[in-house]
Amino acid sequence: MTDPETEKPGIRRPRINPHRERIVLAHGGGGQLTADLLREVVFPRFTNEWLDVADDSALLPTDGPIAFTTDAYVVQPIEFPGGDIGRLSVCGTVNDLAVAGADPKWLSLALILEEGLAIPTLERILDSAAAAAREADVAIVCGDTKVVPRGEVDEIYVTTSGVGTLRAGRELGFRRVRPGDAVLISGTIGDHGLAVMLQRQSDRSIRSELSSDVAPLSSLVADLLDAVPGVAFLRDPTRGGLAGVVADLAEGTGCRVTLDETRIPVRKETRYAAEMLGLDPLTVANEGKVVAVVRGDEADRARTALREHPLGRDAEVIGRIGPERDGTAELVTEVGGVRIVVRPYGEELPRIC
Amino acid sequence: MTDPETEKPGIRRPRINPHRERIVLAHGGGGQLTADLLREVVFPRFTNEWLDVADDSALLPTDGPIAFTTDAYVVQPIEFPGGDIGRLSVCGTVNDLAVAGADPKWLSLALILEEGLAIPTLERILDSAAAAAREADVAIVCGDTKVVPRGEVDEIYVTTSGVGTLRAGRELGFRRVRPGDAVLISGTIGDHGLAVMLQRQSDRSIRSELSSDVAPLSSLVADLLDAVPGVAFLRDPTRGGLAGVVADLAEGTGCRVTLDETRIPVRKETRYAAEMLGLDPLTVANEGKVVAVVRGDEADRARTALREHPLGRDAEVIGRIGPERDGTAELVTEVGGVRIVVRPYGEELPRIC
Repeated sequence: MTDPETEKPGIRRPRINPHRERIVLAHGGGGQLTADLLREVVFPRFTNEWLDVADDSALLPTDGPIAFTTDAYVVQPIEFPGGDIGRLSVCGTVNDLAVAGADPKWLSLALILEEGLAIPTLERILDSAAAAAREADVAIVCGDTKVVPRGEVDEIYVTTSGVGTLRAGRELGFRRVRPGDAVLISGTIGDHGLAVMLQRQSDRSIRSELSSDVAPLSSLVADLLDAVPGVAFLRDPTRGGLAGVVADLAEGTGCRVTLDETRIPVRKETRYAAEMLGLDPLTVANEGKVVAVVRGDEADRARTALREHPLGRDAEVIGRIGPERDGTAELVTEVGGVRIVVRPYGEELPRIC
Repeated sequence: MTDPETEKPGIRRPRINPHRERIVLAHGGGGQLTADLLREVVFPRFTNEWLDVADDSALLPTDGPIAFTTDAYVVQPIEFPGGDIGRLSVCGTVNDLAVAGADPKWLSLALILEEGLAIPTLERILDSAAAAAREADVAIVCGDTKVVPRGEVDEIYVTTSGVGTLRAGRELGFRRVRPGDAVLISGTIGDHGLAVMLQRQSDRSIRSELSSDVAPLSSLVADLLDAVPGVAFLRDPTRGGLAGVVADLAEGTGCRVTLDETRIPVRKETRYAAEMLGLDPLTVANEGKVVAVVRGDEADRARTALREHPLGRDAEVIGRIGPERDGTAELVTEVGGVRIVVRPYGEELPRIC
């Protein structure tokens, strides 16, 4: 390898001083500065046999069906209690693959950076993405970096795509759901969305210990699928919250889904923050929880399997699939009333993920 | 399927009036309005067996190694002579897969939309992406839509990832390049970058018929690989232009690469526009061209194969790999001088792709 400036093979002077420098437009130009940014700031954090080839495409050794997914992350602020946009972008995509019944394997990371972003900030985000990738046992194998002039993007947006391998006999989906099935959640709801919202208050009038639940769910899901082979349906309740997932479940299966409000785990801090902000935890995004539908007689086994995993300690059976064929989701409230659960109409919380 | 508003199964009132409406934050909230936007504006344009499942992950029937790539597109203006951000985002990702020797198959499309974007504009971009996908014979199988408040993104950014299948015996790369090999380009250089730059001039002082070359190269590359099985290396000269690719080629192989300026095809309009704007076509982005390295004695066959394809009519042999082991790229100029070709230092043209 030759450094084009010194023209002596094997000599590579570092060009970027990350403690001092900010992102400039030239870092996204595809020229020498882009190559320097990748070599000095990006690649060392994600080193693996596929990325290290440093070509535009990663060549990957699959030998059977795959799952493929993508998500754009625009969360604001980019760093929040419990996580940041780097961890979020890795976990969100890992979780989409896991709930499809796939083993997450390879991710891509496409960055859109604002001119002027401090390089130490970028480094923290990338470190966090790399740590989450190690935690989830996935490799970041390809990526892209664009820089746009100041004001044309807000700090940093990340789009992560993922590929996972599918095992035979792990078919999941609406059509596998049957009347009599049980609905479980792996833990407390609303923590991510409310932690981000609290962080956004300019006056910090509500103080809280609340932090985001953002975590990779692949090992929790694998444990559940090993313990309960008859899992019918899995979904991570992100944007739209638990309400969005159960509304989809009712619509997609045509069955009635009934939740028991007293069984839905909500942290005290989350409930308090939701009340202060006028939000319903049922519609708030989670980033480290999974909703599972299993056969009714496997509900206890599923709960036990979830609770044995550190990310599922608060797992609970929260509802059931009824015999009525009306595609309605309903919530039996704490006081014994019944209300219809609809997916939230629109954006209660812009830029929550 | 049940409409949660009417609560009558099978009845779906259209909710979006695309001729009147603009994107609002709620279209990105993961709730009812997001579902409406997907159902009425997005899905009908890309219908295929994988997307129509409408789950977060697409389940795909590979049975061997794959190539995986991603690119973020932030081009400004989003519509330009010869293309738009929709066509660009599909072609760019298809081309990255094609030059890796893969057959492009499946794409994901992640949109970050600015609040207030006119829905007819979004529809034109999506129509264009769908047309490019048909042209390239790929399916858009999954996606994501986020909306951010006005001013926090500029109209629309698209991140496209792609998966292609690899055929045995199609190994390409720096290490397959040998002294004596010939370097080819499939057509004229600089057209994309200069067409976009001309479109950006507020005063339109330079008038031109120039249009972007943005096109999917997969069938051109397939024809070349069929005709010339010994192709050593392929790359699409996007950001950084032809200069960036030959500098990479010299550095990556450790060989000397010599280009003959008189053989490099440049349109008259492109040369004129480059002179007016003070740019070197060698460093300007292309979006429908491929650089190929083949054995010296296969150069004519490769040129013929390229020229028989509509996208390769102006293909030319433009250089060779020399015996010198100095990793230098050089250009023999029209007047017989020699200059070193380095990758451009940074961003000559922000937001060109």
